[in-house]
Amino acid sequence: MEIGVIGLGRMGANMTRRWQRKGHRCVVYDLHREAVEALSREGAVGAASLEDLAGKLGKPRALWLMVPAGAVDSMLGELTPYLEPGDIVIDGGNSYYHDDIRRAGELKSRGLHYVDVGTSGGVWGLECGYCLMIGGEKAVVERLDPLFEALAPGAEAAERLPGREKKPGTAEKGYLHCGPHGAGHLVKMVHNGIEYGIMASYVEGLNILHHANAGKLGREIDSETTPLREPAHYQYDIDLADVAEVWRRGSVIRSWLLDLVAKAMLEDPKLERFAGRVSDSGEGRWTVQAAVDLGVPAPVISSALYARFSSRQHEEFANKLLSAMRYEFGGHLEKKAEEGPGAS
Amino acid sequence: MEIGVIGLGRMGANMTRRWQRKGHRCVVYDLHREAVEALSREGAVGAASLEDLAGKLGKPRALWLMVPAGAVDSMLGELTPYLEPGDIVIDGGNSYYHDDIRRAGELKSRGLHYVDVGTSGGVWGLECGYCLMIGGEKAVVERLDPLFEALAPGAEAAERLPGREKKPGTAEKGYLHCGPHGAGHLVKMVHNGIEYGIMASYVEGLNILHHANAGKLGREIDSETTPLREPAHYQYDIDLADVAEVWRRGSVIRSWLLDLVAKAMLEDPKLERFAGRVSDSGEGRWTVQAAVDLGVPAPVISSALYARFSSRQHEEFANKLLSAMRYEFGGHLEKKAEEGPGAS
Amino acid sequence: MEIGVIGLGRMGANMTRRWQRKGHRCVVYDLHREAVEALSREGAVGAASLEDLAGKLGKPRALWLMVPAGAVDSMLGELTPYLEPGDIVIDGGNSYYHDDIRRAGELKSRGLHYVDVGTSGGVWGLECGYCLMIGGEKAVVERLDPLFEALAPGAEAAERLPGREKKPGTAEKGYLHCGPHGAGHLVKMVHNGIEYGIMASYVEGLNILHHANAGKLGREIDSETTPLREPAHYQYDIDLADVAEVWRRGSVIRSWLLDLVAKAMLEDPKLERFAGRVSDSGEGRWTVQAAVDLGVPAPVISSALYARFSSRQHEEFANKLLSAMRYEFGGHLEKKAEEGPGAS
Amino acid sequence: MEIGVIGLGRMGANMTRRWQRKGHRCVVYDLHREAVEALSREGAVGAASLEDLAGKLGKPRALWLMVPAGAVDSMLGELTPYLEPGDIVIDGGNSYYHDDIRRAGELKSRGLHYVDVGTSGGVWGLECGYCLMIGGEKAVVERLDPLFEALAPGAEAAERLPGREKKPGTAEKGYLHCGPHGAGHLVKMVHNGIEYGIMASYVEGLNILHHANAGKLGREIDSETTPLREPAHYQYDIDLADVAEVWRRGSVIRSWLLDLVAKAMLEDPKLERFAGRVSDSGEGRWTVQAAVDLGVPAPVISSALYARFSSRQHEEFANKLLSAMRYEFGGHLEKKAEEGPGAS
Repeated sequence: MEIGVIGLGRMGANMTRRWQRKGHRCVVYDLHREAVEALSREGAVGAASLEDLAGKLGKPRALWLMVPAGAVDSMLGELTPYLEPGDIVIDGGNSYYHDDIRRAGELKSRGLHYVDVGTSGGVWGLECGYCLMIGGEKAVVERLDPLFEALAPGAEAAERLPGREKKPGTAEKGYLHCGPHGAGHLVKMVHNGIEYGIMASYVEGLNILHHANAGKLGREIDSETTPLREPAHYQYDIDLADVAEVWRRGSVIRSWLLDLVAKAMLEDPKLERFAGRVSDSGEGRWTVQAAVDLGVPAPVISSALYARFSSRQHEEFANKLLSAMRYEFGGHLEKKAEEGPGAS
Repeated sequence: MEIGVIGLGRMGANMTRRWQRKGHRCVVYDLHREAVEALSREGAVGAASLEDLAGKLGKPRALWLMVPAGAVDSMLGELTPYLEPGDIVIDGGNSYYHDDIRRAGELKSRGLHYVDVGTSGGVWGLECGYCLMIGGEKAVVERLDPLFEALAPGAEAAERLPGREKKPGTAEKGYLHCGPHGAGHLVKMVHNGIEYGIMASYVEGLNILHHANAGKLGREIDSETTPLREPAHYQYDIDLADVAEVWRRGSVIRSWLLDLVAKAMLEDPKLERFAGRVSDSGEGRWTVQAAVDLGVPAPVISSALYARFSSRQHEEFANKLLSAMRYEFGGHLEKKAEEGPGAS
Repeated sequence: MEIGVIGLGRMGANMTRRWQRKGHRCVVYDLHREAVEALSREGAVGAASLEDLAGKLGKPRALWLMVPAGAVDSMLGELTPYLEPGDIVIDGGNSYYHDDIRRAGELKSRGLHYVDVGTSGGVWGLECGYCLMIGGEKAVVERLDPLFEALAPGAEAAERLPGREKKPGTAEKGYLHCGPHGAGHLVKMVHNGIEYGIMASYVEGLNILHHANAGKLGREIDSETTPLREPAHYQYDIDLADVAEVWRRGSVIRSWLLDLVAKAMLEDPKLERFAGRVSDSGEGRWTVQAAVDLGVPAPVISSALYARFSSRQHEEFANKLLSAMRYEFGGHLEKKAEEGPGAS
Repeated sequence: MEIGVIGLGRMGANMTRRWQRKGHRCVVYDLHREAVEALSREGAVGAASLEDLAGKLGKPRALWLMVPAGAVDSMLGELTPYLEPGDIVIDGGNSYYHDDIRRAGELKSRGLHYVDVGTSGGVWGLECGYCLMIGGEKAVVERLDPLFEALAPGAEAAERLPGREKKPGTAEKGYLHCGPHGAGHLVKMVHNGIEYGIMASYVEGLNILHHANAGKLGREIDSETTPLREPAHYQYDIDLADVAEVWRRGSVIRSWLLDLVAKAMLEDPKLERFAGRVSDSGEGRWTVQAAVDLGVPAPVISSALYARFSSRQHEEFANKLLSAMRYEFGGHLEKKAEEGPGAS
């Protein structure tokens, strides 16, 4: 089959490579000419402009956008003049699904089809395949099936569940038509919200173990802090790289993210390459806002999101005001920076 | 009545002053001789040692300890040799109520009585009176009634509730025998847990208003951060000192802590005197641990407590590990420190 | 001054009464004719229709809407045909401030002014005054000043803060022009978010004390539940009505909401009139969504909101799925309903 | 090697079977004679009493206790009279690690060794192996190595990490000596805390998707509830069994627990076998309490724990009090049970 790819960053380039390996013809475009040239050397057809891209694709066209979510609308504005009724635009990036619903309507009025695809797999997708969550019209999604199948990990990527044979479909192959416009990015959004929660679960737990030697540290007694009541309970120097490793086998919490934890701790046990400022990229926020819209509790995902905000000190004003209140009612002055949490 | 006071810090000294104003005889002791001398000049009887203190009190003695929680046990060890059966030791500090239960048993074996008193009021107590939460044997607590009444704010400190006349007792006067040994510090512990939650509620809300101008700040578009979708919604420069002030009158959230917020914001609108490292002094932690023991949810108080831990960067390792995981699965490198939360 | 009032529910009727007491002329309208008649008997001018209302007001008109947030837009659609350039429409209800921004723009195109007023005070406002948070154009807000002053509690409702005389303005009187369109409902929104957090703080703490007798209840030992390690720590029967009462005087957590807690516990110590299904009415949700938009942590307010969702069993599916997972990995069957939390 | 096994429930029986398959001699005892007989038929040596068990084991003995945590101390009291210096007692259950520290000291005074082993794997352990987290004296743990190796899943259970060859040890085989007495159950405790967080992450996310059709449900407008602002955003009927299935391949959140989610949703898409009362068995609670002891934030794990408490309605009193407060300040009466969350 044939696909036009717009946006050849890390993700777009690797998806193109995976399609080419499976024999699909890829016509590629990126603002950075070098990115186009690099993939051309690997067999893709390079395009010098959006117009050129449209011209090099057979009709009806299928175009896969892999650009930052904030750039999709302007890209659609530039692209659509070169498209014709029946063409399909696929947004494979991290768009907010609300935008999908709006865009699908806008494109429909010009006879164009829109498909939203949430993609998980990151830098590992080229090798392992991408998990694809797809939203759009049924017939259109089915027309693109070979492209999805080529990107996805395939059924062999996980053991078959007993009884699954009674429920056929593509889910077992690693891609799924989740519903109408927006459903793909909605499911991907929630996927990422869950991801935030799982990641936070591991780091909270390991942070506790990291501090399990607090009883060895001295503590002063004053009226502002509470001493560790049982220092004997916190005398452990735990090797976290080994703990992550042992959990990878047979434990209830084994997972791909745990594999990454084990890998990261093995490579850099003190994590000295990182300062601890954790970005968040939209889906976590939208997941929380959807939960609030729907009136369903999401305390775990919210806590995970807020921990990322806190890692960037976005509550500095709030903390200062807490200190100011404590000063007002108790004459408490702030303590100087401590050596470690044991001292709080 | 007569009371021996051990520990003449901020709290102990002011309580002594309040008793003296109400005509009670105070014999006072502190490791710092100047503290004793200062109160002696205000009419208290100074003691040079614990033995001297015990000697200057009529029997059965009543001794009020106002020392850091971590110092109570050693103080009891030094003090009890000078005491006699029937004497009463009152711990007016911030002890963990588990310790009260233990200490009451230990002292009982020597014929001594123990009373635990949780005290709220801080630096304002001298003027407004102290709210007292009391645990211990009924007869012993009743014997000390004049001392409690003298410290407490009195019924006039709040408007009488309709129907309250049918439920007599001291609660309306600002002191309460809450139950057996430990009950006073238990109720005070939970009081402080609630205090953490209320304080956090105000600062979270005001922090949101503090950032309500985020839409005026520029935002770059990249694949790591999500742009503010509706900058027009965040174009407000809110005067928080005025907001706190207006809420003091007629609003549902008026409170004494809000008075302090308004005062702090009025004095120092940018809170430049504070760095935002917020201490916690035991009761918040114990409240959470009690909730967990009992299997009752306490997400608000827990969140307030954790925000204090975070203000002291106790999750630094966890944040670094989050960054490491993001690097492993997505090749995400940490972003440099941002100018403000709008940019995340 | 003169004001037209649309919506004579609990809030609208009492605000009318308060204006009338201060000598303002009120022309009133409501879909329910009896509500109009009732206020007419108290001296208001009744209107039979929106057209009638508009005809009975001098120009430029000031109209105060006190209708459910979901009904404001349709009401504006019906009302504006009867209005003329220079007229002012005030939304005193609980609108989302996003809507204020939009409506102000829509009305401006017809020469009409819009003012948003967040109002706190509930059923107590008639007697104590309403705390008013106001958004809109400066000149328009100033024109309405007598109406705001009449509704507000006045400076005497709280003690003056030291130094406040240097910062003049209306905040001390209980009403505040917070900023441009939307600012009033924004500040009210956050006010309610804080309110959720404070309310949750009290009930969490008191719930812990409510269960402080868990050690008296028997516990069985099996592999599914953990026994209470120290039953001796939970042997207390705490009188919560008395605890709330004692906290009202001198404690750090005294507040108007605590007064209500004390009142509620006094009237109905077992709270038998309530089943525990707690509504939420928009502002709490919007506060959390604003925090998420802005990237600032709001764990306490979020937790308080989610507790309300949970009180209405909105996580039932989630809980069932948790049970299903436990069954899958451990063969754990669900336990039957317990007698009390001590048994978990 | 030889091992005595006490406690032949689900876990103890399967561990015995796994040892026997690897050629170890198992002498087994349980209060229920049938359990002993069943394993005897599979080749184990049955014991009629603890004395009989001790007599049938060569010296120095190794005894593996697999009994409920609450029964370990009494079991040790009954067992130790039959033991001799040099014997090893292993607690393979879910003991609190504080108890391990105490017990190790008590047994040491009698010349006995104590080893604590946290075990993960549940009903799947027989087939897949058990992940073992071990605490105790180095030499003693090493002596037991063949028993641990036999239980553990083995290196082949997960792909080797690049660079792991430079860090030898048993972690790769699925068992780990984590540190001195208590370290095994400490690491297992945190493992379970993480497990709570991960499980909650999945169910929160899936619960959001479960409600993604809320926009199709009707909503009434009143002043107590907020309408769904954009019903068009919530028109999705998501097949959660398929979503869980697709995430199993290539997604960032693939895990063993996700496999179980997919299995559970496939077997019983409406989860009709479950009421949603979720037990918690100690480790989650202790993890939170350790975090609080150490002053490190654990909001995600805490939220997950509290969600379980809430699933058992342990905050009923708190919710009633919230309703009572709302009634006091706003005259809000409780709404009747709703049809669904969309209506809140």
